[in-house]
Amino acid sequence: MKRLYYPLILLLAAHTLMAQEVSQEAMQKIRKEGLENSKVADIAFRLTDASGPRLTNSPGYQRAAEWSVDQLKKWGLQNARLEEWGEFGKGWQVEKSYIAMTKPYYMPFIAIPKAWTGGTSGPITGEVVVVDINQEEDLKKYEGKLRDKIILIKGEANTAPTFKADAVRYTSEDLDKMADSEAFGSRNFTPEMLERYRAMRTFRNRVDSFLLAQKVKMEIVARQGKHGTFFTSNGASFRGDAPEPGPSFEMAPEHAYLMARLAENGIPVTVEADIKTTFYNKLTSSNVIAEIPGTDPKLKDEVVMLGAHLDSWHGATGATDNAAGSTVMMEVIRILQTTGLKPKRTIRIALWSGEEQGLYGSRNYVKNTFGDPQTMKLKPAHEKLSAYYNIDNGTGRIRGVYLQGNEAVRPIFEKWLAPFADIIDHPTVTLRNTGGTDHVSFDALGLPGFQFIQDGIEYGSRTHHTNVDTYERLVMDDLKQMATIVAAFVYNTAQMDQKLPRKPLPKAPDSVGR
Amino acid sequence: MKRLYYPLILLLAAHTLMAQEVSQEAMQKIRKEGLENSKVADIAFRLTDASGPRLTNSPGYQRAAEWSVDQLKKWGLQNARLEEWGEFGKGWQVEKSYIAMTKPYYMPFIAIPKAWTGGTSGPITGEVVVVDINQEEDLKKYEGKLRDKIILIKGEANTAPTFKADAVRYTSEDLDKMADSEAFGSRNFTPEMLERYRAMRTFRNRVDSFLLAQKVKMEIVARQGKHGTFFTSNGASFRGDAPEPGPSFEMAPEHAYLMARLAENGIPVTVEADIKTTFYNKLTSSNVIAEIPGTDPKLKDEVVMLGAHLDSWHGATGATDNAAGSTVMMEVIRILQTTGLKPKRTIRIALWSGEEQGLYGSRNYVKNTFGDPQTMKLKPAHEKLSAYYNIDNGTGRIRGVYLQGNEAVRPIFEKWLAPFADIIDHPTVTLRNTGGTDHVSFDALGLPGFQFIQDGIEYGSRTHHTNVDTYERLVMDDLKQMATIVAAFVYNTAQMDQKLPRKPLPKAPDSVGR
Repeated sequence: MKRLYYPLILLLAAHTLMAQEVSQEAMQKIRKEGLENSKVADIAFRLTDASGPRLTNSPGYQRAAEWSVDQLKKWGLQNARLEEWGEFGKGWQVEKSYIAMTKPYYMPFIAIPKAWTGGTSGPITGEVVVVDINQEEDLKKYEGKLRDKIILIKGEANTAPTFKADAVRYTSEDLDKMADSEAFGSRNFTPEMLERYRAMRTFRNRVDSFLLAQKVKMEIVARQGKHGTFFTSNGASFRGDAPEPGPSFEMAPEHAYLMARLAENGIPVTVEADIKTTFYNKLTSSNVIAEIPGTDPKLKDEVVMLGAHLDSWHGATGATDNAAGSTVMMEVIRILQTTGLKPKRTIRIALWSGEEQGLYGSRNYVKNTFGDPQTMKLKPAHEKLSAYYNIDNGTGRIRGVYLQGNEAVRPIFEKWLAPFADIIDHPTVTLRNTGGTDHVSFDALGLPGFQFIQDGIEYGSRTHHTNVDTYERLVMDDLKQMATIVAAFVYNTAQMDQKLPRKPLPKAPDSVGR
Repeated sequence: MKRLYYPLILLLAAHTLMAQEVSQEAMQKIRKEGLENSKVADIAFRLTDASGPRLTNSPGYQRAAEWSVDQLKKWGLQNARLEEWGEFGKGWQVEKSYIAMTKPYYMPFIAIPKAWTGGTSGPITGEVVVVDINQEEDLKKYEGKLRDKIILIKGEANTAPTFKADAVRYTSEDLDKMADSEAFGSRNFTPEMLERYRAMRTFRNRVDSFLLAQKVKMEIVARQGKHGTFFTSNGASFRGDAPEPGPSFEMAPEHAYLMARLAENGIPVTVEADIKTTFYNKLTSSNVIAEIPGTDPKLKDEVVMLGAHLDSWHGATGATDNAAGSTVMMEVIRILQTTGLKPKRTIRIALWSGEEQGLYGSRNYVKNTFGDPQTMKLKPAHEKLSAYYNIDNGTGRIRGVYLQGNEAVRPIFEKWLAPFADIIDHPTVTLRNTGGTDHVSFDALGLPGFQFIQDGIEYGSRTHHTNVDTYERLVMDDLKQMATIVAAFVYNTAQMDQKLPRKPLPKAPDSVGR
């Protein structure tokens, strides 16, 4: 139905573009290199195990970013560099993390300090007080009563047995539904959801300030998860001028609830703990940028971009979120370099920082390079970008692509997927959006930014922002497949006679309603 | 088919027994108390959270056993006591457990000391050496080279994504298959399996002695599991005369493999660790025993037993293995006492110790009370036991019962299950055995010992001998159902005109082949 109403001009443009054949020889080279000589396991090892957690502006992020620049240089890329994009806030890392119950008996606990919180200044011990704060009025009853206490905030984790598999792949029916849907914004928030989210954030900040003012000795918060897995939170403020919060553990719900049940049954609970964290005051942050220069005199000033965020949360080594995407994009570059294919347009890789806190790296890169989405004042480079491809949905193989509402690219992407039908089960192109990550920064300025449909695997159940998002969570065969297909998309985009068709430019938010 | 060949005398006996109706009034009382006034959540809290890990002869076991005796007394049971059954070996518990990687970056690890191993005498630090020992010859290459090293033994954990649900219930098809099968010994080991297991144990003991002789500083062993869950091992020797092994951590595979990959890629890994464990030299061990005296002058000397093992492994609070079974059996007693039903025969509950190391508590109880299965010399009490009912397959609700090869009880059990058809989906009676736990100790002496068919839930995937077998893993509705049905079975057994039919007495192993 949507097609009927789509501007005729774009349909005609799409039809013209459809006529352009892709080089099957190039596709064969990419396929061979990507599937038979893959280096995804090595790249992923460097970005996860060897770098560690990659919280933005932490030493771990820096290690990963520097290794990436170095590796890109070794592969012969041009202009490989760390590019500062502006001020992010403080770096932070954990240097000691220990908590165990010592009474009524000894038990070590699974927990990690909340991001951007402080330390205990050496080992501490104390009785645990369960605190039940769910609304503003609850604060009053604790006013003046929590000084020097170790408090436990329960939250509401669902620890019931899971009768559904942790790991899932899309069925053909799932994909057909996704393709048929009239809904564009499947992963976007409704105004009501945003309102609830903002209210929750405001209340959480209120609670944080309250507890800071109460001078509690340490805070323990039960998080969602089960079986030793838990999901870390968005942490405390990383702003340069934010006060340093007291020590705070995020904990597997089983261990937090054990303490809560004991205390609520009148059995005193004592813990011992030791947290050391370090803050870093270099507030500016950098993305990794590098290029394969274009070779066609008329087209080499035009650019095809590919990227993924390199930063992670701090509870593990951020394997599926998002070493997976960064690994794939690095491997795409390696495939393109190794096959010796000479792209007509310039190909530029970007590995972003600050994605987890609000797409900072990509948003600022777009603003610095292409224009300001707030005013829609565009820079000359805006005209030169054909497309940006992003990966940030975990380790699952590609099953198709989201058009992000850009119907005109449908026939092009369908053609590009076709040679890989043997390694894509039920290839699917959907008009839908996918949101929440860095292609949105491009889309907001009317630049074609795309993500792929990926099998979920364990992303929602076990890996996304958890303490167990480690190298083990990566499915190497899926990463190989992804790199092969993305390499084809990037190369084909670089070789087209024209840039990819664009959606109409969005209106500047600043101009709306004036 | 089996029925055709079954001794006619037993079939006739069964037929006679079939005629005996159960008291529907009693069944109603049991159902009401078990389903509407359940105390399983409270009992389970006491046995898990409040007691802690219940390794045999540890303070945690003692807490749980003493609470149970006390509670049974409060419910008015007779002869409630801790009954020593002989020498088990040393008690042991963890009093400090900390390990983290400190180079190339800091990361706290999920790990627990191996049972019955020693401490570090305060914090230690050192580089990790990956050791690859899979066969006798491998030992030579490390001879003299591991002194004062922290060694890492990799093992082979499967950390791939799980496309099957962690939690499962039997389908009707599963149960029909189980009921139809001709195989008696579904869960018993073949001689080849036993041989392989013994060879593996022998080699492990060999490796343990080797490492002890090499004077390694600490050992780290990767265990099976994933996502923060790991399965602990059977531990070191608990014998009174066993030498105290050096410190040894069992670790989530993700963390062990992170270190292994780093080291194998030439990146030095340093850890810091602190283990304190305490051994207890009171070597004898006790079961919990208590009775509801029979009220029929002619039958009160006869006994119906119910039991479960109270001991657990040390990595968590042993909720599904086997606080679940102990909770259900305690609740059965509470139901029978609260309803005021006066059993004709004496009902005796037993909560066993030492099950995890080889059914020690129940085997010795049987030997001390009923006779020696090695010689088949029987004591007078052997004639007086009608049946023993056991629960030790996790938190899953009852779907039927294993006849343990005793066809003659089929019509009786079928009749007893019938009034509960509304709370048992597809009730099933199978001739099969289930093994590996305490009813086997009775069966070995020709005493009718039974277990129930229980839904698996997460027993195999997440809970059995893991670090996350906590209170959260219990499905309270299932425990309620189990207690209700077991209470009915126990009561009905106590009320029968005759004892339950028995299988022919086994031959004494000592007499075979002489």
